[in-house]
Amino acid sequence: MNTQLTQHSPVQNESVHNESAATTQSLKSHSLAFTTDPDHGIRVPVTEIALEPSPGGVGNPPFRVYRTAGPGSDPVRGLDPYRAPWIEARADTETYAGRERELLDDGRSAVRRGAASAEWRGDRPVPRRAVDGRTVTQMRYARDGVITREMRFVALRENCDVELVRSEVAAGRAIIPSNVNHPESEPMIIGKAFLVKINANIGNSAVTSSIAEEVDKLQWATQWGADTVMDLSTGDDIHTTREWIIRNSPVPIGTVPIYQALEKVNGEANALTWEVFRDTVIEQCEQGVDYMTIHAGVLLRYVPLTVDRVTGIVSRGGAIMAGWCLAHHQENFLYTHFDELCEIFARYDVAFSLGDGLRPGATADANDAAQFAELDTLAELTQRAWGFDVQVMVEGPGHVPFHLVRENVERQQELCKGAPFYTLGPLVTDIAPGYDHITSAIGATEIARYGTAMLCYVTPKEHLGLPNKDDVKTGVITYKIAAHAADLAKGHPGAHERDDALSKARFEFRWRDQFGLSLDPVTAEAFHDETLPAEPAKTAHFCSMCGPKFCSMRISQDIRDEYGSADPESALAARAAGMRAKSTEFLASGGKVYLPDPAAAGPAGS
Amino acid sequence: MNTQLTQHSPVQNESVHNESAATTQSLKSHSLAFTTDPDHGIRVPVTEIALEPSPGGVGNPPFRVYRTAGPGSDPVRGLDPYRAPWIEARADTETYAGRERELLDDGRSAVRRGAASAEWRGDRPVPRRAVDGRTVTQMRYARDGVITREMRFVALRENCDVELVRSEVAAGRAIIPSNVNHPESEPMIIGKAFLVKINANIGNSAVTSSIAEEVDKLQWATQWGADTVMDLSTGDDIHTTREWIIRNSPVPIGTVPIYQALEKVNGEANALTWEVFRDTVIEQCEQGVDYMTIHAGVLLRYVPLTVDRVTGIVSRGGAIMAGWCLAHHQENFLYTHFDELCEIFARYDVAFSLGDGLRPGATADANDAAQFAELDTLAELTQRAWGFDVQVMVEGPGHVPFHLVRENVERQQELCKGAPFYTLGPLVTDIAPGYDHITSAIGATEIARYGTAMLCYVTPKEHLGLPNKDDVKTGVITYKIAAHAADLAKGHPGAHERDDALSKARFEFRWRDQFGLSLDPVTAEAFHDETLPAEPAKTAHFCSMCGPKFCSMRISQDIRDEYGSADPESALAARAAGMRAKSTEFLASGGKVYLPDPAAAGPAGS
Repeated sequence: MNTQLTQHSPVQNESVHNESAATTQSLKSHSLAFTTDPDHGIRVPVTEIALEPSPGGVGNPPFRVYRTAGPGSDPVRGLDPYRAPWIEARADTETYAGRERELLDDGRSAVRRGAASAEWRGDRPVPRRAVDGRTVTQMRYARDGVITREMRFVALRENCDVELVRSEVAAGRAIIPSNVNHPESEPMIIGKAFLVKINANIGNSAVTSSIAEEVDKLQWATQWGADTVMDLSTGDDIHTTREWIIRNSPVPIGTVPIYQALEKVNGEANALTWEVFRDTVIEQCEQGVDYMTIHAGVLLRYVPLTVDRVTGIVSRGGAIMAGWCLAHHQENFLYTHFDELCEIFARYDVAFSLGDGLRPGATADANDAAQFAELDTLAELTQRAWGFDVQVMVEGPGHVPFHLVRENVERQQELCKGAPFYTLGPLVTDIAPGYDHITSAIGATEIARYGTAMLCYVTPKEHLGLPNKDDVKTGVITYKIAAHAADLAKGHPGAHERDDALSKARFEFRWRDQFGLSLDPVTAEAFHDETLPAEPAKTAHFCSMCGPKFCSMRISQDIRDEYGSADPESALAARAAGMRAKSTEFLASGGKVYLPDPAAAGPAGS
Repeated sequence: MNTQLTQHSPVQNESVHNESAATTQSLKSHSLAFTTDPDHGIRVPVTEIALEPSPGGVGNPPFRVYRTAGPGSDPVRGLDPYRAPWIEARADTETYAGRERELLDDGRSAVRRGAASAEWRGDRPVPRRAVDGRTVTQMRYARDGVITREMRFVALRENCDVELVRSEVAAGRAIIPSNVNHPESEPMIIGKAFLVKINANIGNSAVTSSIAEEVDKLQWATQWGADTVMDLSTGDDIHTTREWIIRNSPVPIGTVPIYQALEKVNGEANALTWEVFRDTVIEQCEQGVDYMTIHAGVLLRYVPLTVDRVTGIVSRGGAIMAGWCLAHHQENFLYTHFDELCEIFARYDVAFSLGDGLRPGATADANDAAQFAELDTLAELTQRAWGFDVQVMVEGPGHVPFHLVRENVERQQELCKGAPFYTLGPLVTDIAPGYDHITSAIGATEIARYGTAMLCYVTPKEHLGLPNKDDVKTGVITYKIAAHAADLAKGHPGAHERDDALSKARFEFRWRDQFGLSLDPVTAEAFHDETLPAEPAKTAHFCSMCGPKFCSMRISQDIRDEYGSADPESALAARAAGMRAKSTEFLASGGKVYLPDPAAAGPAGS
């Protein structure tokens, strides 16, 4: 059926590789399936990849992979709020009138126009919050020993024991971002005991994109594997764009509320107040934002520590708060009002993403006094949030040379008592603008190997401009690689199964399966077809690197046919007897060797 | 002047990014310069990058980077053999008639045609070899305490003490591939004490490319940073194609002679003989090949160890020799005749690249019995080659999960007594065909950090098809990233200077310098221009991620202007006094904050 993967054909046409006629062909093997827990009425969507039989006709069962795309939605109607009954059944929340909508929520131009430009046309759910005196966070439930349906969904999705989910959430070592006002989202978990996750940033800006484009980017990012999406809109219609995104998002949505708050005060940092910020946070809590980046660690006394850096302060939120502190010569109001934020988040189950406003923006500034001073404060804030049973993750850098990457995650894990680390990259060199998805994927693999729970993607446009659709896909696929490589390095149960299945398909010349099992079947098939476009080539037992009668994989199979045994010992024993027969057979068969093509050479082309 | 960077405009037009009108613009700051050692009459070509002044008019001296492109050459005439006088001056070599040229050297089709299709039109140097009883390898000179001009050139190029060069070569921990019949090449060194190097594979095949295209690929690869190039041609005109490549190559050329030998016996592995192979090796020694991949470690008794692998034998040379062993039930003739190979190599100063024919082709097969058994034999062969004063490097995998990468280089370094390790990647996951330049750059950075001396690039087409020109460039740039990231991680002296210069340029909004200092100025400028094409944007003190009046970098500069001091302590002391003044000034200036654009968001978009 392949719902989510065909619905985007117009989108895919925007991608070079996807212009290939093979686009749908390569995805025909993908379909939507479900893993179910009938006892608790839970079913988790997965992508099922149909496989062809091995040589000799031995069948291969379909292969199931973690799916972030959700069931797919009509953008103007949004997704079904299927988590709503779970929330209501807990009977600890209430609906209420909610904050009054203001035109300024959509920015100054909306005020001028007297309306937002593209009102949300689907249902607008009534805001929900905890009844007085109750805390409705997954952390609170976990600490109370309650196993929620969200936890069961996650356990099924991660193929692990639900008690592991509960205990990690209770300890603060994992979070399940799940605002009670975002019932459309499929529960997912961020923590080092689980699969490494990735985030994709989208969002409009004054100059670039429409609401429809943002919803399209959301679906595009989740189709390719984004586990969460941050809406960083700063242009017109911020409120309305966010409404469209949340109502259509099967993954948790994160934001940086300081951006919208700044919009509300006409872009004047010094005009920011706790009241304006608080109002903006509540507005977003009511809409269903699942986690928010809060730069509460940028303290007045830390600002001078950035003076001698090569690139000073590079976080935009960090710079805004530093500007405010300087303008008022006062302590960061996000820090002084942090407990009030905790009380708000506790009533909606919004998670903190504690922003690293003083992160290094150059490898020369990595692991310096400013960065680590802020981390100490983020550790303090983590404890304070946990005191309110509010879920927390901590953001990390940035630009860090490869040998200093590990210290970042080990220090954060120690100081923050295992609270999930959420890093961008880090980039391991500064000299490759245009390729920073790669410079950062290298650091991302290293930092995830040692415990980072979620990686924020970087696109090829980082430092240079605004990513287009292809950049978003490239960023997501590159980060799926880093996250999976880290899962393998951590020995995460089952992580190697997809690698083994694809390698087996490669060895058996099951080309379609090699495409279907890859992170990007469209590109894999398109690249193959550039050399061997003919349809038979997809079933032929050779590749463009070898002739039709011989290739290294083929002789390996001959050797296996020869020695048969799956036991190396007896294989060795069989050698003496088997070798001469092999020799005769090989010569009898003509023993022709076709030279492999060098252009797709193996190591050192040999 | 920028010779090598403008001569390829037709070539660059084949590249998407290079179609940008900004192509030449972004490279205008690059020019050919020389670092000289007048005492010994040596000058090393470098690329000099002109920089603009910092804000306030403080000038920035031009930045010099390691240059692999050479002086540039007219393909039909080739490069000047400027190293020839050095070789002659040593008076330990002689010219001689050389092996008689056969049409079969250019393959069966040449024999049919009665001629090669595009004879080399430049000078064909008379073959040179050591006079009887002499060994003319850089290793022998180093062991004799002789400092050659090649060593001085390398020391100047690496900016290190020439004694370090001599002692590392003498110990076998580094090699300077420099066949006496390739006087056009610029000496370079491969060893863990020096900058990490990268290799690019080129070469024609039956179906794909012409001689002119291969010379073009050679120049394209070295323009972007390839330190050595392997000619893996297997199609028509193998001999003649190699002649064109060597005569035009400013970098050492490597080959896998078994490919041509197989061509000479009509592609029948079982028809291979030591005599045919030996004749092919001498042919290539006389042409000037600097290093050759020899699969002498694929022993008969190791073949059964591959039986239970997921992907068996994936090395083409390894499979060819395994096929031969099986066909004859005899030991690998490359192993049994190894000493004779050493005697030949010693007379031309050809270096061994000991091939890892049993390397893993899937992460599941990494670090297994077959791979490590072969490595034991490669260690034995390293000692044997050193006994003849022949330079050696050892090839490594392949496909290895991230946590098992380090063991590969540490084991090789221990067993092979520090002989340079030369690896492809390794790829840290098997599930991303189409993105294996990335999966392998992750492993490459890790393995180089722990001592791999040279990395063989992987292009996006690996496993799928034949790389085109853009794939070659992508592979080279991606591997320059991995090599440089490893140099930074190793704390290689001066490695960080380019990062710091680029980051400083970024912080000071010197856009042209940010482009010019990057590994790929063309792509960096093209990406920038997609968002802000206007010329003034390249000098504007803001970027597409920020408004014109404010960005995080700007406020950082305000902070620096504020605290001034380069000493954090006094900066802290200055805080109390400075902060209020700062506050006033900031307010007076309007304190306007323009929202950064989210699309090019920093870590977690904050």
